[in-house]
Amino acid sequence: MQSKSFIPPVRTLMGPGPSDVHPRILGAMARPTIGHLDPQFVAMMDDMKHLLQYAFQTSNQLTIPVSAPGSAGMETCFVNLVERGEKVVVCQNGVFGARMKENVERIGAEAVMVEDAWGAPVDPDKLETALKNHPDAKVVAFVHAETSTGVQSDAATLCKIARAHDCLSIVDTVTSLGGTPVQVDEWGIDAVYSGTQKCLSCTPGLSPVSFSERAVDKIKNRQSKVQSWFMDLNLVMGYWGEGAKRAYHHTAPINALYGLHEALVVLQEEGLENAWARHRRNHNVLRAGIEAMGLELIVQAEYRLPQLNAVSVPAGVDEAQVRKRLLQDYQLEIGAGLGALAGKIWRIGQMGYASNSKNILYCLGALDAVLSSMNAPINSGAAVKAALEQLNS
Amino acid sequence: MQSKSFIPPVRTLMGPGPSDVHPRILGAMARPTIGHLDPQFVAMMDDMKHLLQYAFQTSNQLTIPVSAPGSAGMETCFVNLVERGEKVVVCQNGVFGARMKENVERIGAEAVMVEDAWGAPVDPDKLETALKNHPDAKVVAFVHAETSTGVQSDAATLCKIARAHDCLSIVDTVTSLGGTPVQVDEWGIDAVYSGTQKCLSCTPGLSPVSFSERAVDKIKNRQSKVQSWFMDLNLVMGYWGEGAKRAYHHTAPINALYGLHEALVVLQEEGLENAWARHRRNHNVLRAGIEAMGLELIVQAEYRLPQLNAVSVPAGVDEAQVRKRLLQDYQLEIGAGLGALAGKIWRIGQMGYASNSKNILYCLGALDAVLSSMNAPINSGAAVKAALEQLNS
Repeated sequence: MQSKSFIPPVRTLMGPGPSDVHPRILGAMARPTIGHLDPQFVAMMDDMKHLLQYAFQTSNQLTIPVSAPGSAGMETCFVNLVERGEKVVVCQNGVFGARMKENVERIGAEAVMVEDAWGAPVDPDKLETALKNHPDAKVVAFVHAETSTGVQSDAATLCKIARAHDCLSIVDTVTSLGGTPVQVDEWGIDAVYSGTQKCLSCTPGLSPVSFSERAVDKIKNRQSKVQSWFMDLNLVMGYWGEGAKRAYHHTAPINALYGLHEALVVLQEEGLENAWARHRRNHNVLRAGIEAMGLELIVQAEYRLPQLNAVSVPAGVDEAQVRKRLLQDYQLEIGAGLGALAGKIWRIGQMGYASNSKNILYCLGALDAVLSSMNAPINSGAAVKAALEQLNS
Repeated sequence: MQSKSFIPPVRTLMGPGPSDVHPRILGAMARPTIGHLDPQFVAMMDDMKHLLQYAFQTSNQLTIPVSAPGSAGMETCFVNLVERGEKVVVCQNGVFGARMKENVERIGAEAVMVEDAWGAPVDPDKLETALKNHPDAKVVAFVHAETSTGVQSDAATLCKIARAHDCLSIVDTVTSLGGTPVQVDEWGIDAVYSGTQKCLSCTPGLSPVSFSERAVDKIKNRQSKVQSWFMDLNLVMGYWGEGAKRAYHHTAPINALYGLHEALVVLQEEGLENAWARHRRNHNVLRAGIEAMGLELIVQAEYRLPQLNAVSVPAGVDEAQVRKRLLQDYQLEIGAGLGALAGKIWRIGQMGYASNSKNILYCLGALDAVLSSMNAPINSGAAVKAALEQLNS
């Protein structure tokens, strides 16, 4: 059977990621491929490192993109910083804390769990208590921006507590980087990973990471080899290191890196602070519309991520049917709830390039139309009006 | 400091990969991103599996692309099929056998090495002897097409020996897939991995893999969890499995997968047998030119990979300077030797879309010009003529 070229539909991506990709980035993906040791490519890699340092607000030398998606970025942090038999305190308040636990256990290390409700931030007091009870813990790991719930935790405070107990910190900023402040140096983060398909407006597939000097010291002085050859930063550093001489480790995903470089240039042109302000402003516009419709955001205002809105599904509404109708009739993707929140919430993303007033008004209008047609208990017609008022306020 | 968009030069890529990317594939990379659970994307994934089954000549259900480069495809095979304490026979005749050994040891398993000279194929008799001496071995691993030397080993015979000793086989076809025959079912391969940036004419970043039923049985009945969460096929199968329902594991690299899909459609349109014949034919054209110039191919004719030519550097010639001149003056990339062959050979690839007469004549002409200008001992002017004669024969 003869296959044909795949021509994807043009969607509006307002789920938990991937989000709408900036056209400049799509264009960059199609530029001619060159070799991974080509001097011009090596120069681009150096520029990429500087751009990532800016995005992460760090001067860490070891600031690079891992050649695989965010989950591999997470695993890169754990397998390099944790050794068999060590104890790691993992704070869980959503899906991705559970994944961290899996990472720790598959190293043969012990995960001490600090649990908070899904939809609530990580409680610093619980972390403090856990570290007092486990003075032999070496690492603290938590998610800055929980993609499964839209909650932001206080990374600065959590990292401070970790350091006071002589622990390294591993922080998940997959959904926060580029959308809300991530201050790696100021907050004292030791290892951080992110994704490209959220607030960086890029295609999925790479994971920016950054490591403090303390973290690099630990990596260079491990008792055992890193269990993953592909993710071993001692080897990866030979390719991404300083100077013109680069040792072949793996073949870098050239065109994906073109895309990420372009995404970071776009971010630099806008300016980080402006990007953060735009996400905040557009969140308020969407929120005004959602609330006017009579729907609720499940996360308390002070912990909400502006780029990811967890919206409660009205009573009696089949949430999957709503998403299906939005996709079929409006080419609009929003996200479902995960885990404990499956069936109970939608996740409406406003990430990176997708965070703009055109998307918001379209999303509110489409959601209103679909819910009204299903006789859901909403204030039909109020959402777009309220959003426009907020937009012009 | 403000960065600018990176506009790469247009190179001719005749190294060991990445090789020239087909323009249709670059175009596919820039198509609009859609969600990784979008029904249209899921349908594309199903089509991709069929196309990969064709490329690998297999009916294996578990035939998918790993969301990371070939090195991660290698590691996916090892961490899923090998458990701590098991014994693996690794055949080494170049760089990539050493990487296999690293993979085995980082699992906490034991690698029994079968060594052959760099530039020679794996000796089946040595494998047979090793398996007799190690009846408790569970897995045999070898490289079908050694990218470091341009040598092809007899995968059918090696897999037969492995199976006779009740071992699973892991086979590296990074450089062979799409360029020379890879017959997964006929040869009885249990686990195979490849890359996209060689004879598939695609950008680097993904690794097609395929697993036999025997391999899947082992994966499903492991004593311990796979040490990598990201590479755990028990989880990955939930996303790439049959049917419309897909469980989120990681966010797939959407646009990179568009590229690979297009590459496989291009391959299907040409037909595997035609692609193999083209690589063979063009190899003979390049070979005629290289030999007429007075240079030598270091691999014996019967073991040569048509898509990767290991050419000996003439006495007294600074090989790095030649590559530098080719890149600067001709925008042409050829590869250096690796490991034991560093400084002694060039690796001239003719992979996928890059395997065409225009590239060959350009490469021979440029190499002749650069070597002549350095007063190297070659028959200047003979190469292009001999190649044209072979082309028209």
